[in-house]
Amino acid sequence: MTEPAPVFANGVDHERLTSQLRFYLETDKLKRILRRNMLVDGSRRENDAEHSWHLALAARVFAEYAPEGTDIDRVVEMLVLHDIVEIDAGDTFVYDAQESVSQLERERAAADRIFALLPEDQAKRTRALWEEFEARETPEARFAKAIDRLAPMLANWHTEGGTWVRHGVTRAQVLEKVRIIAEGSEALGSYAVALIEDADRRGYLATG
Amino acid sequence: MTEPAPVFANGVDHERLTSQLRFYLETDKLKRILRRNMLVDGSRRENDAEHSWHLALAARVFAEYAPEGTDIDRVVEMLVLHDIVEIDAGDTFVYDAQESVSQLERERAAADRIFALLPEDQAKRTRALWEEFEARETPEARFAKAIDRLAPMLANWHTEGGTWVRHGVTRAQVLEKVRIIAEGSEALGSYAVALIEDADRRGYLATG
Repeated sequence: MTEPAPVFANGVDHERLTSQLRFYLETDKLKRILRRNMLVDGSRRENDAEHSWHLALAARVFAEYAPEGTDIDRVVEMLVLHDIVEIDAGDTFVYDAQESVSQLERERAAADRIFALLPEDQAKRTRALWEEFEARETPEARFAKAIDRLAPMLANWHTEGGTWVRHGVTRAQVLEKVRIIAEGSEALGSYAVALIEDADRRGYLATG
Repeated sequence: MTEPAPVFANGVDHERLTSQLRFYLETDKLKRILRRNMLVDGSRRENDAEHSWHLALAARVFAEYAPEGTDIDRVVEMLVLHDIVEIDAGDTFVYDAQESVSQLERERAAADRIFALLPEDQAKRTRALWEEFEARETPEARFAKAIDRLAPMLANWHTEGGTWVRHGVTRAQVLEKVRIIAEGSEALGSYAVALIEDADRRGYLATG
């Protein structure tokens, strides 16, 4: 854990600011958590921080495909923090059934440690937003998850199969994940199905 | 330029979605634009995409230090897109006077090209937000700039001087940049001054 500089500023609650700085510095580690998928140009694997940035942008770009009344600011807030737990829990490959079983437990423990670095009021709010994202019960959480699922599909299509080919992922397995996109956005779900059908025709998916 | 998959989805305006996907894919390049400063652990240089993510998070963490009434959602939206122009214009080191002269011109040309990939209504809105950020006239733009200036100072302090030492940056030069932080947030400006004074005592800054 990196400690904030031991300096005092005029008119600032030192303890509170130190907690906030500690959380900010700790989350720098998200830049070193690698995902399975590659950048769109195929040059290297993507990290969680830049992935989260791209989703925050995508939520705005594709906002019109969210159900009417969806609060996009809240979607962006969720997406900015949705992967922070992976600093401790690591990235879980969405097609790895074994890893996925222990994932929730590992992520809960990570949330307990990392969000608690913040002052209590902010820790509570941040934790609640992350839980909301995971529960996928509000339109905001569903749309955020849809964006999170769509992004690697776009990267995979544009790298001629990327992680699908490398990890032997089949059309049936991908279509199962597409359901989560459709739950958050009918239009993006429909686009994702068309994308997968096209990827299948091009041989970007494993046969099985 | 990476072209979106040539697929049609039911009930979606194909031309509009294709424009949005083209912009989304193009902005993936921000992940390959390197900044001068290092990650907090000093392991490598930071890229613009992960930097933008960390600022979006920081705007929320430090929100209480913005002037009352500042719209933090708008601040986050600005920070998510503030560096996209650097895909064409490159990162300009804040202490490089020569580079800074041609910076605005290069960034304007980049904005003309990249934001125009979006459908017209979204292109306009995005361009206007970026112009607002650059103009630093609204409380939102000033707070966003303050966060953008504070982040590399935190990284530099935690890497024992980082870019300051390497590029011969003096205390006077850094304190000039601190004014931009104070313009956006009195409290963060006060913290930044304390941080620089401390960095100076520790020999993290060039003498001059």
